[in-house]
Amino acid sequence: MAANPPLEFNGLTERVDGLPADWYFDPAQYRCELEKIWFRNWIYVGRSSAVAAPRSYQSIAIGDQHVLLVRDETGILRAFHNTCRHRGAALCREPAGQLRSGAIVCPYHAWVYSLQGELLRTSSKTQPHGFDKHDFHLYRIGVVEWSGFVFVALTGAPPFARSFDLPLDRLDSWGLGNLVVGHVLTKTIECNWKIFWENYNECLHCPGVHPQLSQLVPIFGRALLEERDDPKWREHLGDDDPKYKGGLRAGAVTWSLDGQASAAQFPGLSEADRKAAHIYMTGLPSMFIVGHVDYVRVVRLLPLGAERTELRVEYLFAPETLADARFDLANIVDFTNLVMSEDAQVCELNQQGLRALPHVRGVVMPEEYVVKQLHDWIKAELQRA
Amino acid sequence: MAANPPLEFNGLTERVDGLPADWYFDPAQYRCELEKIWFRNWIYVGRSSAVAAPRSYQSIAIGDQHVLLVRDETGILRAFHNTCRHRGAALCREPAGQLRSGAIVCPYHAWVYSLQGELLRTSSKTQPHGFDKHDFHLYRIGVVEWSGFVFVALTGAPPFARSFDLPLDRLDSWGLGNLVVGHVLTKTIECNWKIFWENYNECLHCPGVHPQLSQLVPIFGRALLEERDDPKWREHLGDDDPKYKGGLRAGAVTWSLDGQASAAQFPGLSEADRKAAHIYMTGLPSMFIVGHVDYVRVVRLLPLGAERTELRVEYLFAPETLADARFDLANIVDFTNLVMSEDAQVCELNQQGLRALPHVRGVVMPEEYVVKQLHDWIKAELQRA
Amino acid sequence: MAANPPLEFNGLTERVDGLPADWYFDPAQYRCELEKIWFRNWIYVGRSSAVAAPRSYQSIAIGDQHVLLVRDETGILRAFHNTCRHRGAALCREPAGQLRSGAIVCPYHAWVYSLQGELLRTSSKTQPHGFDKHDFHLYRIGVVEWSGFVFVALTGAPPFARSFDLPLDRLDSWGLGNLVVGHVLTKTIECNWKIFWENYNECLHCPGVHPQLSQLVPIFGRALLEERDDPKWREHLGDDDPKYKGGLRAGAVTWSLDGQASAAQFPGLSEADRKAAHIYMTGLPSMFIVGHVDYVRVVRLLPLGAERTELRVEYLFAPETLADARFDLANIVDFTNLVMSEDAQVCELNQQGLRALPHVRGVVMPEEYVVKQLHDWIKAELQRA
Repeated sequence: MAANPPLEFNGLTERVDGLPADWYFDPAQYRCELEKIWFRNWIYVGRSSAVAAPRSYQSIAIGDQHVLLVRDETGILRAFHNTCRHRGAALCREPAGQLRSGAIVCPYHAWVYSLQGELLRTSSKTQPHGFDKHDFHLYRIGVVEWSGFVFVALTGAPPFARSFDLPLDRLDSWGLGNLVVGHVLTKTIECNWKIFWENYNECLHCPGVHPQLSQLVPIFGRALLEERDDPKWREHLGDDDPKYKGGLRAGAVTWSLDGQASAAQFPGLSEADRKAAHIYMTGLPSMFIVGHVDYVRVVRLLPLGAERTELRVEYLFAPETLADARFDLANIVDFTNLVMSEDAQVCELNQQGLRALPHVRGVVMPEEYVVKQLHDWIKAELQRA
Repeated sequence: MAANPPLEFNGLTERVDGLPADWYFDPAQYRCELEKIWFRNWIYVGRSSAVAAPRSYQSIAIGDQHVLLVRDETGILRAFHNTCRHRGAALCREPAGQLRSGAIVCPYHAWVYSLQGELLRTSSKTQPHGFDKHDFHLYRIGVVEWSGFVFVALTGAPPFARSFDLPLDRLDSWGLGNLVVGHVLTKTIECNWKIFWENYNECLHCPGVHPQLSQLVPIFGRALLEERDDPKWREHLGDDDPKYKGGLRAGAVTWSLDGQASAAQFPGLSEADRKAAHIYMTGLPSMFIVGHVDYVRVVRLLPLGAERTELRVEYLFAPETLADARFDLANIVDFTNLVMSEDAQVCELNQQGLRALPHVRGVVMPEEYVVKQLHDWIKAELQRA
Repeated sequence: MAANPPLEFNGLTERVDGLPADWYFDPAQYRCELEKIWFRNWIYVGRSSAVAAPRSYQSIAIGDQHVLLVRDETGILRAFHNTCRHRGAALCREPAGQLRSGAIVCPYHAWVYSLQGELLRTSSKTQPHGFDKHDFHLYRIGVVEWSGFVFVALTGAPPFARSFDLPLDRLDSWGLGNLVVGHVLTKTIECNWKIFWENYNECLHCPGVHPQLSQLVPIFGRALLEERDDPKWREHLGDDDPKYKGGLRAGAVTWSLDGQASAAQFPGLSEADRKAAHIYMTGLPSMFIVGHVDYVRVVRLLPLGAERTELRVEYLFAPETLADARFDLANIVDFTNLVMSEDAQVCELNQQGLRALPHVRGVVMPEEYVVKQLHDWIKAELQRA
């Protein structure tokens, strides 16, 4: 009798070495990843609506870099390092607010900058020799608004459109730009940021770690990420058994405690998208978006240290859903928060085992082909000029 | 008039340089000592009775290395790094417990290991190319059970029998294997682990630091560790004055508040051992055992950082002592805890003075000849291949 | 029409580069500044009156160096590293106290030192070969008492008289040696010590940061430090308008909430000093003294880390002022504490902005000529052999 043929996932049939174990806790490697990855890619900040009004601002820390976002008078969003060019003071003290004047005034020595970052005047009565205001523009940071989401890139980022694993218009049917934030969750996980993404990128752990989710999404219960990952998929193409077909268990339409949708479903979704029940769109290293039939989930992560990561989850809804008295937010939040807590636990366990001296690196199995893609992306980013 | 002859202790008549002062606080030196000393010697974990049942387990951290101890089905104790070979997750979350099945199952992706550490199966349906389960045995750690004590050695340890300063059978009269833990104390001291051992290895500090102990043990009150350290010992060989003879003050038989023994004394002790009243047996770097006439004291230390050390004291008794209604535990614990607190205070003071820039190193006096032996052992360990 | 002539401050007409931004947070640079600046200059400890009695002692930490100050039997103040020469234990445990005997006795092994630091005896019965007590003098530290102030210098400090920006007798009219401490404030600021001194050394920030102080001291309200900094000063030499003349607003005589003096003014001040209303005398890196007409303010700073500094403010008064029932301490303390809190806030803001990657260094404007002098002094100290 012939041995089982080896698994084949997206072309991967062999075991592959994981990343060096100390990349997950070494402070020097962490600093390197901040500088090569986090400071050189588009990082998700939050929804445009939080900085909608002219002169509104927001600040965010990416590692030890503090970004100041300001909506200028013409409605354009600007981003700068939150640092005065004079002696380096932070310009805005609060995480968010509204500028009192049409200028950014340093609270230390009152240097005045336009909302476009030009130095308009110093506090000195006349200009000293060798001082040209044009040399003292605020340090510019790239900013993109897309579908109501704000992203910044400190330096040298690739084109924004290439920052996702799907075409930028993939979720257009959801009308992302019109959705509003109905709920926000924040959670700190004691693990390296890469541990989070590895967990995100495979479902080998799903049957053991996510019993409820594995019931809701049968293919996850089979430790697979997608329909096409099932070697028997082709055999069952005509079969109606959801076990072999992706999508949710019979009777469920969305990710919630009871599988039922909140008050309203998005009207323009394709039949395929409704059946899939979750379309993931990933923007490394800081975020992913999931389109469900009745809500959109947005997860942002930010590294707080070599072994600490902050997660923030935003739940987006159509405005009419939030206004609907029948709308049951807990049905959604309790379910997705359960899944996130289960993942957080195993992410922290993963972190805890990595320092064993003989453990030079782990191993990536064929089913974890997206983890391998993640590792390849990380290694390429660390090499990128 | 001739000068006093110089002191002579165990052949030591000259002052000797201490270790470099920064060895007591420099993080790089601390890391080096972890790797060369703590990871390459037999480290005391605890009593066998805590992992007596088949499938019971315990975990312990030695520096940043997490050890998993498991009693297998045949009664043999096994030790592994608490790290799954797949992606490095910690295998057991709790400090101690009972495995539900006769296997170690990783809580992340459910890789299954036998209690001997063999990888039995992964969560992948078939094995990928180039994957041989035999390459993924759990990382083995040496383990020894001796007289009811469990020791582990991460790598390259000397033979266990050479890990003590006395022959392994020296305390056999106490029947160590049959004793039970009647009390446990834990204490964190803000000092380097070597400071603790230096304090342990001399009694120059006893008269000033331990007034009660110095009364109980007259030779300690004379700043000496042992009878033979007294240059006048030979002169007083026939003398009955306990001041010159070791042992305890008249009327006392053990280390306790009133010098009286708890309910029962060990029956098989020699007259010499009863008179000595404390037989110390030391297993560097992690523990010592003291045999008293009515109880055994076991002290374990573990380094928590360059300037922090954890002490755990176990008090062992004959089972019938613990069952005896007259048994007065406080009489013992209050006394030994007083001595330990006095030592902890001066150990912390010692640590506090070491950073003075001109203080390149201290000096070891002849009476501190065991401190010199300790330093020699440390230097030899740091050189050992 | 000709352009405005450039500002000229004390010869400075050009903008000057600031110090490298990472000098304000890099731990290695911080260590270097401790060793080259803080351990090699006269550091203010406190008032002599705190160690007035023979055998009284005090300890202070300068970075990680612990200094022990002791008044000997002859009234001379001595300073040593708080470290025993035997095995390095700290000699005195408390921040201040009174020695019980006329000797310093190590609490660990009872080595005994004279109050002049000589090793008088060890705890060993006789001296070992190669042991000469003279080799084990306590580690000496330089100490100076001047006008009731105590300063120490660990090593290699310049002559004390050159440690101030003014002649040592400049504040003699205040009778500093006879003043007593009426109040003490302590505050921890989250900034590098150099940020504090930069803030101290310019008044460009005064109009925006200190509204009350700017009202009290008109020239501060014009963003100037001193009369002579005003280019129009010469034009107004005959003018009585205080705006152009330094000193305080009309009707005020001192720094207090209402501008009025506490019960008594110092009798011997010159008319010029009364008019100036504040004479600053600065002893880098650790202190400054301000003479007001009715009190003296002394500010000590000590670095607690690369990004943390401790301030301690002492308010000195004539003894008869403190005894006067009409004396209103709050009038002084509430005002100066307000100014100090305003400065602390902007110092912390300054620190927060410095890590922006493109911010290699800031810029020093001509009005900040004393900041440039500070930077020059720091750079020279770091080069000093």
